[in-house]
Amino acid sequence: MSPKITAELLKQLRQVMKNPKYVQEPVQAYIVPSGDAHQSEYIAPCDCRRAFISGFDGSAGTAIVTEQHAAMWTDGRYFLQAAHQMDNNWTLMKMGLKDTPTQEDWLVSVLPEGSKVGVDPFIIPADQWKRMSKALRSAGHDLVPVKENLIDTIWTDCPQRPCKPLITLDLSYTGVSWRDKIVALRSKMAERKVMWFVVTALDEVAWLFNLRGSDVEYNPVFFAYAVIGMNTIRLFIDGDRMMDPAVREHLQLDSTLEPEFKIRVMPYGSILAELQAVGAGLSPKEKVWLSDKASYALTEAIPKAYRYLTPYTPICVAKAVKNAAETEGMRRAHIKDAVALCELFNWLEKEVPKGTVTEIIAADKAEEFRSQQKDFVELSFATISSTGPNGAIIHYKPVPETNRTLSVNEIYLLDSGAQYKDGTTDVTRTMHFGTPSAYEKECFTYVLKGHIAVSAAIFPNGTKGHLLDSFARSALWDCGLDYLHGTGHGVGSFLNVHEGPCGISYKTFADEPLEAGMIVSDEPGYYEDGSFGIRIENVVLVIPAETKYNFKNRGSLTFEPLTLVPIQMKMIDVNLLTEKECNWVNEYHQKCREVVGAELERQGRHEALRWLLRETEPLARVQ
Amino acid sequence: MSPKITAELLKQLRQVMKNPKYVQEPVQAYIVPSGDAHQSEYIAPCDCRRAFISGFDGSAGTAIVTEQHAAMWTDGRYFLQAAHQMDNNWTLMKMGLKDTPTQEDWLVSVLPEGSKVGVDPFIIPADQWKRMSKALRSAGHDLVPVKENLIDTIWTDCPQRPCKPLITLDLSYTGVSWRDKIVALRSKMAERKVMWFVVTALDEVAWLFNLRGSDVEYNPVFFAYAVIGMNTIRLFIDGDRMMDPAVREHLQLDSTLEPEFKIRVMPYGSILAELQAVGAGLSPKEKVWLSDKASYALTEAIPKAYRYLTPYTPICVAKAVKNAAETEGMRRAHIKDAVALCELFNWLEKEVPKGTVTEIIAADKAEEFRSQQKDFVELSFATISSTGPNGAIIHYKPVPETNRTLSVNEIYLLDSGAQYKDGTTDVTRTMHFGTPSAYEKECFTYVLKGHIAVSAAIFPNGTKGHLLDSFARSALWDCGLDYLHGTGHGVGSFLNVHEGPCGISYKTFADEPLEAGMIVSDEPGYYEDGSFGIRIENVVLVIPAETKYNFKNRGSLTFEPLTLVPIQMKMIDVNLLTEKECNWVNEYHQKCREVVGAELERQGRHEALRWLLRETEPLARVQ
Repeated sequence: MSPKITAELLKQLRQVMKNPKYVQEPVQAYIVPSGDAHQSEYIAPCDCRRAFISGFDGSAGTAIVTEQHAAMWTDGRYFLQAAHQMDNNWTLMKMGLKDTPTQEDWLVSVLPEGSKVGVDPFIIPADQWKRMSKALRSAGHDLVPVKENLIDTIWTDCPQRPCKPLITLDLSYTGVSWRDKIVALRSKMAERKVMWFVVTALDEVAWLFNLRGSDVEYNPVFFAYAVIGMNTIRLFIDGDRMMDPAVREHLQLDSTLEPEFKIRVMPYGSILAELQAVGAGLSPKEKVWLSDKASYALTEAIPKAYRYLTPYTPICVAKAVKNAAETEGMRRAHIKDAVALCELFNWLEKEVPKGTVTEIIAADKAEEFRSQQKDFVELSFATISSTGPNGAIIHYKPVPETNRTLSVNEIYLLDSGAQYKDGTTDVTRTMHFGTPSAYEKECFTYVLKGHIAVSAAIFPNGTKGHLLDSFARSALWDCGLDYLHGTGHGVGSFLNVHEGPCGISYKTFADEPLEAGMIVSDEPGYYEDGSFGIRIENVVLVIPAETKYNFKNRGSLTFEPLTLVPIQMKMIDVNLLTEKECNWVNEYHQKCREVVGAELERQGRHEALRWLLRETEPLARVQ
Repeated sequence: MSPKITAELLKQLRQVMKNPKYVQEPVQAYIVPSGDAHQSEYIAPCDCRRAFISGFDGSAGTAIVTEQHAAMWTDGRYFLQAAHQMDNNWTLMKMGLKDTPTQEDWLVSVLPEGSKVGVDPFIIPADQWKRMSKALRSAGHDLVPVKENLIDTIWTDCPQRPCKPLITLDLSYTGVSWRDKIVALRSKMAERKVMWFVVTALDEVAWLFNLRGSDVEYNPVFFAYAVIGMNTIRLFIDGDRMMDPAVREHLQLDSTLEPEFKIRVMPYGSILAELQAVGAGLSPKEKVWLSDKASYALTEAIPKAYRYLTPYTPICVAKAVKNAAETEGMRRAHIKDAVALCELFNWLEKEVPKGTVTEIIAADKAEEFRSQQKDFVELSFATISSTGPNGAIIHYKPVPETNRTLSVNEIYLLDSGAQYKDGTTDVTRTMHFGTPSAYEKECFTYVLKGHIAVSAAIFPNGTKGHLLDSFARSALWDCGLDYLHGTGHGVGSFLNVHEGPCGISYKTFADEPLEAGMIVSDEPGYYEDGSFGIRIENVVLVIPAETKYNFKNRGSLTFEPLTLVPIQMKMIDVNLLTEKECNWVNEYHQKCREVVGAELERQGRHEALRWLLRETEPLARVQ
């Protein structure tokens, strides 16, 4: 990787920062955040503005350009990558280190008195605007919205915003019709005495209307907004996608419907004007509900007194609790995914010793096997296929420059997943195709103990996921080890592989309580810089737990693994497992054998079936 | 308990709420918070204004009186007690229940338009003022400071503010001189570019000057404020306490000192005027550091632009990390405390079967044994001495109306502690003087497993205590049980038995990371309403842990129990313990035997020594 040459681009940006065509008054600094107008985690190429201006294309980072400086804030996952990708016009601001200034403090330290700091009001979330604007104001500067995105003005070969066809999902996939979802949403709105709800997150629009798209890689979403009133539905979406008869039928655009279910389709770009019109027409006490992460532009369209902002929207919460159809779909998807991985691991066991399998080849092979499964749509994220020291790079993605060959001497870590029409998968297995060292087995076994501690945990209804995070670390902590990422994230149902509002992480506190039907990942790990990485990840479903007693009648919950892929036994030091843990592994493998075995049989994949049977023999502890 | 008759008092209060002698304009509501001007948890009788007006004397609660209503907000610990103590002029607002309005929402719902809501600006913390004021303003009302406390104007027999003699602590107790503490504080101030620090919490003043008092029961503190400049020290304190030659000598009031260590003693009541003078004299960039819990009155004395507010002050953080002298003192105090409890439990074992020991008698006896120990000062909190169903009332304190007789048929829970000149103790033991049922033993053993899980936990440096909370619950959760309080709190060194900034609770997130030298309690429990309560509490010291590996060179921590009192073995179902847990109990008991045994021997307490030896025989698991 050689760094991007940015001198000329920065010069152009600094010119438009003063150009009255774009700014009312010159801005002395311009902020380029990571996200798009929907605060998406994964973004379309046309929204990769920060990568365009700096060269740094990690998933998180904020660039700020002033007349003299260009600085990039990113976190520990990306220090190395950012340093490689940016030329020396850029200063890397390592977030999380003690001496790194915040963006606000840095701006205050470098700006001349009374400066204007510009930002695209569609890209910056309202809560972030508020924080930054306050800090700047108290130092005598102003944060100002710059209507036209200044990067776009200099990005001459900017790709088009994607506008791909939509997929309609019927009841067998979604369990609930979009009409019933609207009814449920309106009842939540009525509860909070709110008259309007603005849907800004792409996965929320997709979920609400039981539609999927492919505008953003890995995330089956499409660019759209929606505004739901108590009697009106407006969908803001571009292109000829609404001409598709299947979509028209699905949304009943041509039927005579009760007016409150009639969808008015409007251009994507008209959301701001429409919302401003809504804002102007509000009577006293008519509140408008928005996520506090919605863009500053849309939030400002509603006068302050009428805004009702929450960190999690009712759609986000409803979407997280999967219904029976979704749960069954997720189960099916995970069985198919397990079939693909049994094929892959069987193939790897044969091929790796030949020395011809690279990380990229292995990743491609995984995709090939997955794509043979029914209702496969695409991958759910960029496959992390890493061997030896590459495994210690937590967000590694093999590229030709880093591509290592798998061998019988190194640990191999594969973190991968797919979008099937019936569900989303995300699974990590760590394998050795030769003989692991005692130390590697020891570390693997601690990670496994942590994985089991979460997966088998029983906890009261109403418990937040962050309270389970330490269970995953306890065995590692006992030996002075740890891993520097959270333990789990919410997983969508044929939607984003990362979704809120629940998760398992020491970093959050504002997560919503876990409830039956929620689906999260359980993925502790251990990483030794320069040598290897270990992670064991299952997607698990929150289910009611039977307990001996029932304190205050609260009821208890636990997890059921949806992922059914063997955990490599040669990596386990059985003597470090308790009897309970050993039984957990054996029962888990028994279930893999039965459920995935039946499907392998059905698909006539006999060699992979033999591999599965070999890999799921019961473990025995030496007493 | 019969409720307090409050009709006449409320009438008087409503009159002064309109009396121009006290209020510039009539106030339509008056808020009576729990605390004193120092936001103390334990308050002096003269500060029990909320109890005076309502009758409810629990440790937490806020009263609001309007022209029509009188309402009391308190939490689950006090629903029953508040309902008993208040007459029907009062509405109980049960905090934590879904339908209970917040104080702000309730005020908005009952107040006529454009109302004024009064509060004593010395009593309300600045952060609370800010929140409430904002909520009221957005509904068209005003929160206004009422200089004279309106309760005091009608409280004709209000007790005097205590003004008791001070105790000076020399280096053998404190390890660090007050001068060195001032030097360290000033260096923290310089780090943050702050010119002034205002000490408002009573335990912070006491700690800073190595002085103790007895103005507040159980807390060895005295009413005072301090304002520390880079070159000046002002101590605001009343009475002739500064005439005491020992205090004058300790503070070097009559010595020729470098001017920056010269203490100016000023009247307690002059703090506001002095602080206003400081505020008026600030040059640009001269910041003043206050706790964000300091009173609104003192916070307002400093113009907003000059305030530097933090949730934890540098004194709070420094005080939490005990030095070698303090740690040794705490160890000594806990050995003496264990001697007293061995005597008590030996005595109870003999006396309970006779049917003559009540909860109050047992509590008194505990105090008697403690008071025989060297450097005993007073109890560190009101003894919780509870048997049978009373044990399920978490903050129970026996009074004649509820006083039960201990018997061989009920579980007995004793949560008690003392202030010794060398340290503060807080210990809970749950005992049975007959034969516990299998169910009682089962529950006790789960609580013990939780206690051990925290006490034996190994965790990385920098871990916050709240991440350990679930360890204490895991065994209970497995069976569908739980307890509705946190697991641990910070403990002062001959100071408040509850102190910040660390603790072990699922409820907080903003606690400071644990570090070696901090002292917290470890006290999981289980409570069955109407039948029994179980709690096992040790005070534990954070110490470095030796681990096999050392990830990122961070180092690890664990706990060393300072409390050395046997855990009753007849309550343990040994077969529910793992081998590791069983070993923990045996090693703990071995240490009690050696350390406390030696002290019992030295004090010639042979009968109690025999009891200790009996109670610390090794447990054996049936394999």
